[in-house]
Amino acid sequence: MTISWVQTLELSLPSLNDNTADADRLIQALKSRLGADDIAMGLDLLKTLPDVMRNANYHIRCVLYKDLSGWGISSVLAAEDLIPVLSIAVDLGTTRVVLRLVDLSCGKSLAESSFDNPQLVMGPDILTRIHHADSPEGQLHLQNLIVDGLNRFIAELCASCGFASTDVYLMAIAGNTAMTHLFMGLNPRWIIREPYIPVVNRPGTHLASQLGLLANPCARVFVFPNIGSYFGGDLIAGILYSGLNQREETAILVDVGTNAEVVLGNKNWMIACAGAAGPALEGGAARMGMMAGPGVIDRVAIDPDTLQMDIHTIENLPPVGICGSGLIDLAAHLFLCGMLDIRGKFVVSRCSNQLKEIDGIKHLVVVDQKDAAAGRNLSISQADIDSLIRSKAAMYTILETLTASVEMAPRDLTRFYVAGTFGSFINPISAIAIGMIPDLPLNCYQTLGNSSLGGAAHILESSELFEEMDRIRDSITYLELNVNQDFMNRFSAAKFLPHTDTSLFPSVKIKLT
Amino acid sequence: MTISWVQTLELSLPSLNDNTADADRLIQALKSRLGADDIAMGLDLLKTLPDVMRNANYHIRCVLYKDLSGWGISSVLAAEDLIPVLSIAVDLGTTRVVLRLVDLSCGKSLAESSFDNPQLVMGPDILTRIHHADSPEGQLHLQNLIVDGLNRFIAELCASCGFASTDVYLMAIAGNTAMTHLFMGLNPRWIIREPYIPVVNRPGTHLASQLGLLANPCARVFVFPNIGSYFGGDLIAGILYSGLNQREETAILVDVGTNAEVVLGNKNWMIACAGAAGPALEGGAARMGMMAGPGVIDRVAIDPDTLQMDIHTIENLPPVGICGSGLIDLAAHLFLCGMLDIRGKFVVSRCSNQLKEIDGIKHLVVVDQKDAAAGRNLSISQADIDSLIRSKAAMYTILETLTASVEMAPRDLTRFYVAGTFGSFINPISAIAIGMIPDLPLNCYQTLGNSSLGGAAHILESSELFEEMDRIRDSITYLELNVNQDFMNRFSAAKFLPHTDTSLFPSVKIKLT
Repeated sequence: MTISWVQTLELSLPSLNDNTADADRLIQALKSRLGADDIAMGLDLLKTLPDVMRNANYHIRCVLYKDLSGWGISSVLAAEDLIPVLSIAVDLGTTRVVLRLVDLSCGKSLAESSFDNPQLVMGPDILTRIHHADSPEGQLHLQNLIVDGLNRFIAELCASCGFASTDVYLMAIAGNTAMTHLFMGLNPRWIIREPYIPVVNRPGTHLASQLGLLANPCARVFVFPNIGSYFGGDLIAGILYSGLNQREETAILVDVGTNAEVVLGNKNWMIACAGAAGPALEGGAARMGMMAGPGVIDRVAIDPDTLQMDIHTIENLPPVGICGSGLIDLAAHLFLCGMLDIRGKFVVSRCSNQLKEIDGIKHLVVVDQKDAAAGRNLSISQADIDSLIRSKAAMYTILETLTASVEMAPRDLTRFYVAGTFGSFINPISAIAIGMIPDLPLNCYQTLGNSSLGGAAHILESSELFEEMDRIRDSITYLELNVNQDFMNRFSAAKFLPHTDTSLFPSVKIKLT
Repeated sequence: MTISWVQTLELSLPSLNDNTADADRLIQALKSRLGADDIAMGLDLLKTLPDVMRNANYHIRCVLYKDLSGWGISSVLAAEDLIPVLSIAVDLGTTRVVLRLVDLSCGKSLAESSFDNPQLVMGPDILTRIHHADSPEGQLHLQNLIVDGLNRFIAELCASCGFASTDVYLMAIAGNTAMTHLFMGLNPRWIIREPYIPVVNRPGTHLASQLGLLANPCARVFVFPNIGSYFGGDLIAGILYSGLNQREETAILVDVGTNAEVVLGNKNWMIACAGAAGPALEGGAARMGMMAGPGVIDRVAIDPDTLQMDIHTIENLPPVGICGSGLIDLAAHLFLCGMLDIRGKFVVSRCSNQLKEIDGIKHLVVVDQKDAAAGRNLSISQADIDSLIRSKAAMYTILETLTASVEMAPRDLTRFYVAGTFGSFINPISAIAIGMIPDLPLNCYQTLGNSSLGGAAHILESSELFEEMDRIRDSITYLELNVNQDFMNRFSAAKFLPHTDTSLFPSVKIKLT
């Protein structure tokens, strides 16, 4: 049974036979309701409590929170009072920040909004930002950028539903370790320097006001814990959202991006690792590659008979470039049609007049200049394909290494969660075709969408998941990916389409006419 | 073994094989040192922690505190750093406030100071002040008076030993329930109105800065718990100081004043009650009565042969009045010399020419006008004596009622603690002679001095007493003194010198020449 963060109580009235103080009367009743050892209450609440309780004739609503020490009461309202009690879940992404407004009384999602991380002006990647934070002014500037951004969008999100920021009593924030540090004003310096030590693994719960967030003055903020510099709260939130931590059967969760973060396990144990897969999977490395957006090619198919390309762009606009999911589709179809060989090299005879040589490197024209938005050819080079193959090989090698560490093979899995917004757009058939992910039945794959946001929202819906957040953290064994001979052997074998060992990918069949 | 509030730790250094975050590394080490479940750490500390730990090469001193949820870290210093770590115990009296500076590293007392409660300007008694606090401005004014007073004397006390307020990391404050409320800015309105409900029984631990106290920015303040409106934290501190809560044998603790607060018990159980004894015991009711001070008569003896009075004044100055201990001495000696009869009436034949009649009431001249500071007779009236007898009878009746509730008699006690500064000055022989306290061997009596301050200081000396504070609170059964027929019968019997039943006071012998 879920215990709501908002509890309504009808307290026994004080009398000469029961002169328990107001605060202690409330805490005693809540302790028995929640089965809690003790419940914390701050000074500000004590100051207003006697009037609130008497005006409500001891029939009250309590807004609760938890921290690492247990339950606390953030606010007490008259039960009759129809004041809304809201909460906000935040996916604190390096690139994009997503907010979801959740009614704290019933756990219902009310609205969502998102915005580009305002720290992007200081650097698109987290490394640049951490260097920028080397000076206290730089660190403060980065913190102010994200906190101000959050405050603007918290207010807008609340207003969009007819509420105010002050109606927000609880927030849950999931981000990677570096973003979490920058947001909290913690020095991120040692995250990127050997031996890669964060300031804190379990940041816990803080007053919103102490973090600079404009919400109700008594609002509390849960910050998701991390396992280290390279396995952050966004992934803990993702595991929580997937439910992997409660399954009997062993499953895997993969967050595909520049870094591939992978968790393997079940309700009893989890192992995790993170490794650089390279930017190719997100479309970032290709000359025509870019983030998803209007006019970006997100899906590609090639007719094996005519070799005609069928290109889909976001919002059906003239093509401006290609994103990760489009690139994976493209590579998969080029391979299946025999336009790429198993080494990933262009097959000149099959590509015919679509192939151009520029500066001694082969380029395949994907969109002719007459159809492209910018009026010039959009093409993919041999170097782009090579880069994608290195990335997909890295991803598969990570999966293989992790499963091998518990004497499993990737194909033994029965459930494969794909986390992250980017992951949702990948066509698993294409990803299997290039050997990026194992050749499992398609119904084994489950995309989670924004699992970081989903996990953060879960905590707001169900108070008992608060401890689960730490339990997940504590039950994960983090595996350092040692780039040893074993790893390099696996990587070399995975640098083919779909793999040196084609028996691993029985469903992948080249369709030559 | 006592666990110090200041712990020195040599942490293992971070490495690629142990990338635990700085905060979590410290908490893990402290958890095993303290045997704690979890240890809290605030955001401000997290911000400075990485630099402090690295500069100290992970050899550090931690300043700890506890709250109702468990341990917390308030500050981390380099182990080599010779920064003093101090604490202050406070007896927050209605009339007088006493501070003691304690070295938190070793528990050693360094200095003491005291000052008149600045709230006295708003009213000498707590009732007037609570009425003054009926308006929010009045309440704030009273809070500011005491907080400003504390800040001034904290700074002075620290400076007197060559330290600064910012060297104070922990404070323990014991006061009655009303004073505690006024100090914390909590509405005291319902303390004095039926059914007499405080805002809080266990105020817990707060940041000094949140209470307006100027100490180290990270300093925490323990506020002693109360049992109700009329049994406050000063008494819980007193019990802690006496050690009654840890004795095998049942003992009694009496805080003598306008209110008589009494605790009876041992390490397994305690019962307590509080009752109005009247102001006479403190010298407040008599026409010549006053608080102790220079020139005030504090000790009196009468030669049974010559009936010559031997009067001692504070600082040996010409007499200006008489305080409670002097009044008790005076009444005892008047009775023992036959100048008062067993009803407490002046015996005209024995008092002879010292007795004057003013407005139809008999007055006994204690100091002749030629010896008195003001140049006029200092005399005690029959009404003053009657008032004292009512007070002492009330006190004895309370002791008798409380002991009777566990089927004991006052004379069964083997240990009798007298708490409070005023109590320290009472001569037990005199108090027995008038039947105010039971006729026990003198070595059963133990005066504690300022037990409220002593108890507050104890917490600073020994961290394990923090939980004992709550354990004492929880193990006390508070007995409402019902003024029923039994009580009135006991009271009537006690309104004689020393008592109707003289067999209760075998040591009291009237010395008639």
